[in-house]
Amino acid sequence: MSDTYPSSSSPLLIVGSVGIDDVKTPLGEVSGVLGGAASYAATAASFFSPVRIVAVVGDDFPQEHLDFFRSRGIDLTGLQNVPGETFRWSGYYDFDVNQAHSLDTRLGVFQDFRPDLPDGYRDADYVLLANIDPTLQLQVLDQVRDPKLVMCDTMNFWIEGKRDDLLHVLARVHVAVLNDAEARQLCGTFSLVQAARQIRELGPETVIIKKGEHGAVMFGAGAHFSAPSFPLESVKDPTGAGDSFAGGFMGYIAHTGDTSDNNLRRAVIYGSVMASFDVEDFSQDRMKTLAREEIAARYRSFKEIAHFEALGELSLLEKLNG
Amino acid sequence: MSDTYPSSSSPLLIVGSVGIDDVKTPLGEVSGVLGGAASYAATAASFFSPVRIVAVVGDDFPQEHLDFFRSRGIDLTGLQNVPGETFRWSGYYDFDVNQAHSLDTRLGVFQDFRPDLPDGYRDADYVLLANIDPTLQLQVLDQVRDPKLVMCDTMNFWIEGKRDDLLHVLARVHVAVLNDAEARQLCGTFSLVQAARQIRELGPETVIIKKGEHGAVMFGAGAHFSAPSFPLESVKDPTGAGDSFAGGFMGYIAHTGDTSDNNLRRAVIYGSVMASFDVEDFSQDRMKTLAREEIAARYRSFKEIAHFEALGELSLLEKLNG
Repeated sequence: MSDTYPSSSSPLLIVGSVGIDDVKTPLGEVSGVLGGAASYAATAASFFSPVRIVAVVGDDFPQEHLDFFRSRGIDLTGLQNVPGETFRWSGYYDFDVNQAHSLDTRLGVFQDFRPDLPDGYRDADYVLLANIDPTLQLQVLDQVRDPKLVMCDTMNFWIEGKRDDLLHVLARVHVAVLNDAEARQLCGTFSLVQAARQIRELGPETVIIKKGEHGAVMFGAGAHFSAPSFPLESVKDPTGAGDSFAGGFMGYIAHTGDTSDNNLRRAVIYGSVMASFDVEDFSQDRMKTLAREEIAARYRSFKEIAHFEALGELSLLEKLNG
Repeated sequence: MSDTYPSSSSPLLIVGSVGIDDVKTPLGEVSGVLGGAASYAATAASFFSPVRIVAVVGDDFPQEHLDFFRSRGIDLTGLQNVPGETFRWSGYYDFDVNQAHSLDTRLGVFQDFRPDLPDGYRDADYVLLANIDPTLQLQVLDQVRDPKLVMCDTMNFWIEGKRDDLLHVLARVHVAVLNDAEARQLCGTFSLVQAARQIRELGPETVIIKKGEHGAVMFGAGAHFSAPSFPLESVKDPTGAGDSFAGGFMGYIAHTGDTSDNNLRRAVIYGSVMASFDVEDFSQDRMKTLAREEIAARYRSFKEIAHFEALGELSLLEKLNG
């Protein structure tokens, strides 16, 4: 297991959906594959830190998916297995990979799920509230003792239907991550700068807005940070890109234990790196062969893609004034 | 004129529309203002290098607009003034500032325009074929002797209606700049990576895709370059942002005479800087008060926005391996 976490890292607690997906894109079609926000996030994070999942699956959940989690070193003590149907999502993408079209969403066993954290999970330093009903996110927060950094994700469905609970979640987290459409919907403004400020006023000191193929922007106490996206030849399956981003981000933070602005910026790049790998194949297939050396190499590519020289000796102003 | 070009710079030749605009945005409304691709590009470029315009206006063109060009040190020898109506555009923007809605476009005197370059213009080293009928872009190219760098811009109207001429233009330029929708339209693919490669196969070694509020990406012989956009609180009038980008880019290249990859990257940032100022006010009003110190300060802001640390001593891989 040379590509799982180093033993020095702090564990990351992730709550969110674990499910089964049917997905169709212009480049193919799969059914019965591993899906769910917590699944994607946990796998991405597992390259950086130990991961503990809090979620529920039904008795139809395939053994191979459990085996995959275990192959990534993911702790499944908090994954309840109950009679009933696992959460299922089916959807498709056209050529605009930024836009998922849902065909069917069945909550299944998540409908009656009430997270009950194993005692060893309650002192988690790092918590990722992946996309799930904000009521469940709050129940997890209530059980965690004194976390150092909590990040939450969400989606349009909860912004519409569970706004109050979502606002309670936001008031209690350090970092909110959402995509551009969700930020605009939540705040009723087109300007992402204004939306980010509004969200920061709701609680989180840091807001990260994911922009799909256009990268991500982080707004915090200091300067904005704009991360490029990785220019891929083609996107095979965009499902889970945002969750992989969140997992990569929080996994790296848990690994380093460093929440300085400089390190948050690095975490955004690691999140972007993991999202860029995720979309290269269906479901989590790319993660099955991904090596940590590839992660480091892609980080360097991001650096090269974003690089330009500072105003230096040859700068316009200095030429003119000097 | 401390904010016009330094005398050491090479002149930049710009062909494109000069016109009169009526524009409405969620933040206001103006009519009879200075518009046209060449106008915006020339003004942006004039902060970096001497500029020569090749275009035509009618006898209704306001003196104040000519005075503004002159205040920016722009050479108007090649700006024909003929009887008839100046090019006019009227349009509006909703909250999605990336999407212009045209209400009316009247070519006016551009309909019978045939560019005739003053002899002194023909040895231009740097040429910007701003958005205009590609037939006119070709006529200008035919008259220029041995330019070092030619950049062309275009729009959906010419991609649809004058595709053959546009392909001839592309075969003869070094840099093509277009927005993401235009790149997709021209190449019939959603992937910007694939579109850029297709366009490079048509002629230009370098392709720059403008993505509005999402920045710009440059594809060349080397690595991709992704430039962030400047996170503005609000966009008052997006008209001319792309033209200001092209003008800032080419003005900086003409100023430095350096077409290395590193300097093209800087030029993309200067183009982005000029676009970010352009949208802060209607028409070219922001340019009337813009100082070169502000340009340099915003360049530094772009650097800060895009900055993240390379994999260094504390890197994941080295921690694990070391």
